Amino acid sequence: MIKKAHSLVQKIGPGMPGRGENIRLAFEATGTPYTDVSNENKEGINDVLAQISADNVGDANNPPPLAPPILKHGEKILISQSPNILFYLGPKLNLVPNTDEDPVGIYHVNALALTALDGLSNEAHDTHHPIATGDYYEDQKSEALKKAKDYRANRLPKFLGYFNRVLKGEASKGGEYLYGGQLTYADLVFFQCLNGVTHAFPKAVARMRESGDYDLAFALYDRVKGLDKIKAYLESDRRQKYSLGIWRHYPELDDE
Amino acid sequence: MIKKAHSLVQKIGPGMPGRGENIRLAFEATGTPYTDVSNENKEGINDVLAQISADNVGDANNPPPLAPPILKHGEKILISQSPNILFYLGPKLNLVPNTDEDPVGIYHVNALALTALDGLSNEAHDTHHPIATGDYYEDQKSEALKKAKDYRANRLPKFLGYFNRVLKGEASKGGEYLYGGQLTYADLVFFQCLNGVTHAFPKAVARMRESGDYDLAFALYDRVKGLDKIKAYLESDRRQKYSLGIWRHYPELDDE
Repeated sequence: MIKKAHSLVQKIGPGMPGRGENIRLAFEATGTPYTDVSNENKEGINDVLAQISADNVGDANNPPPLAPPILKHGEKILISQSPNILFYLGPKLNLVPNTDEDPVGIYHVNALALTALDGLSNEAHDTHHPIATGDYYEDQKSEALKKAKDYRANRLPKFLGYFNRVLKGEASKGGEYLYGGQLTYADLVFFQCLNGVTHAFPKAVARMRESGDYDLAFALYDRVKGLDKIKAYLESDRRQKYSLGIWRHYPELDDE
Repeated sequence: MIKKAHSLVQKIGPGMPGRGENIRLAFEATGTPYTDVSNENKEGINDVLAQISADNVGDANNPPPLAPPILKHGEKILISQSPNILFYLGPKLNLVPNTDEDPVGIYHVNALALTALDGLSNEAHDTHHPIATGDYYEDQKSEALKKAKDYRANRLPKFLGYFNRVLKGEASKGGEYLYGGQLTYADLVFFQCLNGVTHAFPKAVARMRESGDYDLAFALYDRVKGLDKIKAYLESDRRQKYSLGIWRHYPELDDE
């Protein structure tokens, strides 16, 4: 297990919960020390910018990363892409089933995390930027209104229904967590992404909670939110506030 | 190594190269027998539909999959999500560096594959369906024209430039393949996704090839396409034709 203070140095976008927040939660949930370089000092931000610069070709061990989050582990290892970082950290942080007892479990956890990222992070981002990631929201607002309407009517119910169904399934071992009867990083990703979606679409999410159609999914959300270490983190000043990132609250994109 | 005939049964969407095509290429490139159930018989399609039904809660070992592709390995293991299936198959098919000699290599390969899927598959799909996945192209054509314009102007150059840069980097060990001087599944995913993008946007891709700005990336594309087993597969009737899937050719979305 990696438990040495600061042996895991995380490089992530500053100032708000974004893709890197899934990684932060993995560290926080397990009480693993980490350095959040881009939120802790100015130099850290420059370090991340140098990594994602169009001039960076990586080094002898590491291809260049396209974008944050980037995990630095020790002096030589740099790993990018959120689900990939979680896959790397999962066994080290005991956030996947024991790979000797259940060698396939880690792949199920990975599939669940990828699906949460698809539906509750990537698609949620696209509701406010359906046309061009590099342009302003205001320049694609009419399209965003349409995209968000479809997201609330079709996509969000589809994904919440899916996770509710996973929790009904026998492989969840009782429906307390998504897989194997234990907290895994898939639960943390599901929580974080739905937390972001709740920030973006508070009325739509309240409506879906009240419908009773997704009770197991919302119970999981509440369960993760109430874990001692997660609760303490969410109440700490290490937890950033949502802003103009993946999950944005534009009232006009939510239910009326 | 898994080499028994039909020990790997792949369940994928029928009739055209889609997300599952990345998995087919991994089998084809390594001469690994597989059963492509949804393209081989009617029962196979029903089998896939039962898996992704809103009533399916999985079984004792496997959570339900949200969508194809789904890999069935042996009698008990079902794995979903394309990058996850590739991560699972990579070491078994020798499509990642030897994990004893380079334990981190598989994560670099995974990051590269995820990035190719993000930029050349998911975003390519969204050019023709920017508003609602469940609606017709014709009902979101005006938005698609804008999205495709941004894709050709900004996103495609960004991703091709990224892979070109990866090939310049030392970690590629010479620039013949993306990582570690050997064919990995990241190369196959890059090839397949750029092949799909070339089907969708033949003029834009020809322009980018002629620019000379992405020579290493296009050389990799040509190299993979020319591998004996890939070449034979592409010329066989196992390779389906593109149709109304992820990569669609609408001339109005391409360069003029």
